[in-house]
Amino acid sequence: MAPSADHEGFPDVAPDTTTTVVIVGAGPSGLMLAVNLVRFGINTLILDDRPDKTSTGKADGMQPKTIETFRQLGLAEPLLKNGVKVYDISFWDSSPSHPLRRKGRQLHYPDHLVGASDPYILLAHQGMLEDVLINDLAERGVSVTRNSPFVSVSRDASTGKLHVVYEDRTAKARKVVRADYLVGCDGARSQVRTFIPDAQLEGEMTNASWGVLDGVIETDFPDLWSKVAVRTHTVGSILWIPRERNMTRLYVELSATAGERVDKANATAEYVKARAKEAMKPFNLEWKSIEWFGNYIVGQRVAKHFADPNLQIFIAGDAGHCHSALAAQGANTSMHDSFNLAWKLNLVSRGLARPSLLATYETERRKIANDLIAFDAGHCAAFEAGEAELARNFDENIRFISGVGAEYEEGLLTRGTTVVSSEREDRRLRPGALLTPAKVTRYIDANPVDIQLDIPLLGQFRVYFLLPDVRSATGFLEAVCETLGSESSSICQASVAARSSYTSHPRGVSSGDAYIVPERYTSVSDILSLALVTSSKREEFEVADLPTAMQRSRWTVYLDDSHADGCIGKWMETLDKERTGIVIVRPDGYVGALSEWSVNEGKEAASWVEGYFGFLG
Amino acid sequence: MAPSADHEGFPDVAPDTTTTVVIVGAGPSGLMLAVNLVRFGINTLILDDRPDKTSTGKADGMQPKTIETFRQLGLAEPLLKNGVKVYDISFWDSSPSHPLRRKGRQLHYPDHLVGASDPYILLAHQGMLEDVLINDLAERGVSVTRNSPFVSVSRDASTGKLHVVYEDRTAKARKVVRADYLVGCDGARSQVRTFIPDAQLEGEMTNASWGVLDGVIETDFPDLWSKVAVRTHTVGSILWIPRERNMTRLYVELSATAGERVDKANATAEYVKARAKEAMKPFNLEWKSIEWFGNYIVGQRVAKHFADPNLQIFIAGDAGHCHSALAAQGANTSMHDSFNLAWKLNLVSRGLARPSLLATYETERRKIANDLIAFDAGHCAAFEAGEAELARNFDENIRFISGVGAEYEEGLLTRGTTVVSSEREDRRLRPGALLTPAKVTRYIDANPVDIQLDIPLLGQFRVYFLLPDVRSATGFLEAVCETLGSESSSICQASVAARSSYTSHPRGVSSGDAYIVPERYTSVSDILSLALVTSSKREEFEVADLPTAMQRSRWTVYLDDSHADGCIGKWMETLDKERTGIVIVRPDGYVGALSEWSVNEGKEAASWVEGYFGFLG
Repeated sequence: MAPSADHEGFPDVAPDTTTTVVIVGAGPSGLMLAVNLVRFGINTLILDDRPDKTSTGKADGMQPKTIETFRQLGLAEPLLKNGVKVYDISFWDSSPSHPLRRKGRQLHYPDHLVGASDPYILLAHQGMLEDVLINDLAERGVSVTRNSPFVSVSRDASTGKLHVVYEDRTAKARKVVRADYLVGCDGARSQVRTFIPDAQLEGEMTNASWGVLDGVIETDFPDLWSKVAVRTHTVGSILWIPRERNMTRLYVELSATAGERVDKANATAEYVKARAKEAMKPFNLEWKSIEWFGNYIVGQRVAKHFADPNLQIFIAGDAGHCHSALAAQGANTSMHDSFNLAWKLNLVSRGLARPSLLATYETERRKIANDLIAFDAGHCAAFEAGEAELARNFDENIRFISGVGAEYEEGLLTRGTTVVSSEREDRRLRPGALLTPAKVTRYIDANPVDIQLDIPLLGQFRVYFLLPDVRSATGFLEAVCETLGSESSSICQASVAARSSYTSHPRGVSSGDAYIVPERYTSVSDILSLALVTSSKREEFEVADLPTAMQRSRWTVYLDDSHADGCIGKWMETLDKERTGIVIVRPDGYVGALSEWSVNEGKEAASWVEGYFGFLG
Repeated sequence: MAPSADHEGFPDVAPDTTTTVVIVGAGPSGLMLAVNLVRFGINTLILDDRPDKTSTGKADGMQPKTIETFRQLGLAEPLLKNGVKVYDISFWDSSPSHPLRRKGRQLHYPDHLVGASDPYILLAHQGMLEDVLINDLAERGVSVTRNSPFVSVSRDASTGKLHVVYEDRTAKARKVVRADYLVGCDGARSQVRTFIPDAQLEGEMTNASWGVLDGVIETDFPDLWSKVAVRTHTVGSILWIPRERNMTRLYVELSATAGERVDKANATAEYVKARAKEAMKPFNLEWKSIEWFGNYIVGQRVAKHFADPNLQIFIAGDAGHCHSALAAQGANTSMHDSFNLAWKLNLVSRGLARPSLLATYETERRKIANDLIAFDAGHCAAFEAGEAELARNFDENIRFISGVGAEYEEGLLTRGTTVVSSEREDRRLRPGALLTPAKVTRYIDANPVDIQLDIPLLGQFRVYFLLPDVRSATGFLEAVCETLGSESSSICQASVAARSSYTSHPRGVSSGDAYIVPERYTSVSDILSLALVTSSKREEFEVADLPTAMQRSRWTVYLDDSHADGCIGKWMETLDKERTGIVIVRPDGYVGALSEWSVNEGKEAASWVEGYFGFLG
């Protein structure tokens, strides 16, 4: 029964529907959350106030870490096919003493600084990205409920359930949904945020104002297909970004001087074009077509809270943080907010992990938002200060910009390590950091794979055993597997509960899943995948020589035989034959913990693994 | 007006429709031809007698060269995503003195022997492959005319046009199409072939008979996910091929002894399963499900002609050659028949090349068919002779099996070379061989690309200038470009005619083409793309320093800066600074001619290029 007008704002009436999670906002952040939840098998309602999806403009740059995330979801291909890859950045400036000139041109994400497997920015307009996510939802039978702005939320203290009210503009009625969780992915002016106590945005708006223009440009400027940062002494700065379909995006600074406030009447495409033409002299600049124009005032603000005290209402994306668009961070950080939250919501809502797991969302993502704001303020200042300062700012922040360097502090999910320090510290794994990319060969079918991408995303942790010599370490492996597999093991108990949960509420499937064969990775447990990386050669052992749990994990037995530096060396440091390493990776690809053991310490290692998973059950 | 029954067999009545090319058969060969012709902008009618497309079984292995072709067409991704990649081959045998054992396991396509950029077999059933091609046609507004068997063809001597008769089973009527060309891609029992004089199949059918079974297998046999060749002393041979969706294909030999004729009653799935179980002892073998069963008798036969004397009726694929399925060659060779024919039909039907160009189709592809049959006979014999013989046969033929080693003899399109021999002969380019894969960086946007894949397939030749030092060679480039661009140049004249032809009959477009931006590659000519590969560094020159024609070809200026061995060294041999190389590549990726010049010989080089293109106009 739909609530009558009398009940407006009092949603404690009988709900129209029930779901587990309500997401408000079908932008990159909301859709990324939905895609993950639906794949995990969580009932999800996605509300959006717009009548249709994004077709032009807005965010458009995918950073290396985001590309990796889309690869793990199996959704990168259409974007890689149609997007434009920007590998380099070029710096130009002019001064009273010299005309516009190229000061330098360099790789955007040099391997020695970033080490990303996709070392470029992928430019594709937000609508393409949203399409990919919307199509994935559709394949699993879920669609966005459009024309439906969020109105309010209240909590029924007796049941602990949320009552979410939204306006169904199509039916011209207010509707009430009973849900366990509400996530506001509803942008900088988030309405959901107002229902989280003490969650106001903190920070400053500056006077800096930029115009953004997407179109096809004709020019004799030679670096049209690089990312270009132009700093003029006359009319401020311009950022060039190559786009798909022969387009170029220009970010044009409208208020050149600090403190100068731009006249609103000047925030037009014509004014921005004129200013860009002036800045780019002596080069010619003409537009063959214009697809989109926008403008914004730079502000760096972060919400004081990302969740309510009951851990049922959350905000993600622009609802939690806003900043300039210059470094192409917005949609990326927003999607990684969701990516962090989704698997936690899955485990907690299934009763497989304690609710306190959800508190790590705010701790981890607010830290990143603050890092982002600090970086952004410095980045904008560097942009003003000219090429040398900007180049320095880039080098210092390039890992962070790429997304690869967004790191969490020690906490419930990211535990300290016993690994001895070494000179190669930079590339070695750290709890709270992402898995370093490495090439290995699957034992079972001799396929060379990127180990960080090989196991599909099924909401599982991954436990990698690094064994320089598989034969010396057989006893170690057996001891670990026996302990973790015993009935008294909390992981074993959680796995039994998880099997039951996924049997009654299965993961969302699409016809394409048959090609991934998910059961190859859940054979031992739905909570975690076991994996083995060894420097032993293929002919030195058979899968049948391994403990039963590893035999059932035969698709995740990897040979560390890359001709470049190997996975084990890259991840930990060279281990001798009598040593082993264990790396616990979270469902979102972050390293949870790592440790090193002698081959005689199987039982101790198992206890250590058990200890990590204290948040289960 | 449809012909009445009176006119059966006399198709010189008014045709129902007119087209340029009629293709009979919508299997891999026919669809590949259609996809190319439609992209080139040639009117095409595709007839198929079946009511629906292939959904299970049949051909399923894509070889490295075929994967490259699909990559060039921009159609590889769905197959790469859902197919299974087989990188290795494992050999097992048994004898009276020892039970079944693994004799060896090795990479299928080792880099030093093959050098393919995709060094694996991609397993995906024929329906997936056909779907990709059918979808590409659909995006360009073309579909297969189903339920329509070919009946006959006759030639109107006065107009030179063909009258193709087919039965429209849906409309229950015979229809006549007037066309310039007819291509029979209608399989081993080709009806089109009967209309080519003296085109009967030549060769022998053997008694060797095989059953083929696709299904999901449960087994303790450890090499389930490798390609496996099993030779038993008791019940003959078995070939294992991993498949998508957890399936395995088994080829099971039914007539173990030479000369033994298999009882037709035994060609059943049950018999084949029993035989496989017996052969694989002591391993267990059970089928969880069966998707497809088929059986065939091995024969190696090639049609005496692939074209009629008027060069208007052609056969391609199984219509021209048949052989065993063991080495996964059939669909691959068939599609490359079409790939060879398509661009020639485009140029000749547009009047841009002389009709004699079409004669090279039979010369080139019949040579490959004969190579295939010779290889296949040896391969089948080696399979019988056991592991050592088979491994030797593999090593000797591995480049050919991969498709990379299918080479044409010297002829109209493949001209002899003046390049000095060197020790690196194997990897150096040869006229009649495929372009060797190489990594380069695009100057314009710093994107690292595979040079052999970078220019999209638009029916053009490619002329690569290899310049160790771009500054020393500027005069050379200017001289070549000036000569080829002058009005007396036959290439220039052909380009003018081509521009006019493609303006009145444009290439077939899809919405995705906007992302490829084809005009980047046709800016100089629709007949050819110019490309430059230089070892000079990016900071040593600007695009504006190059001749106008190269400036207009800015998307095909490449830096030879790969950390592994470079493109120029790989393609020709190390050239000193005062030397240059020119490589002419045909629209199908085969090297047409290559030559080496001093930087002072620009005019001579231009004449040499002109000379190659003697078949134009």
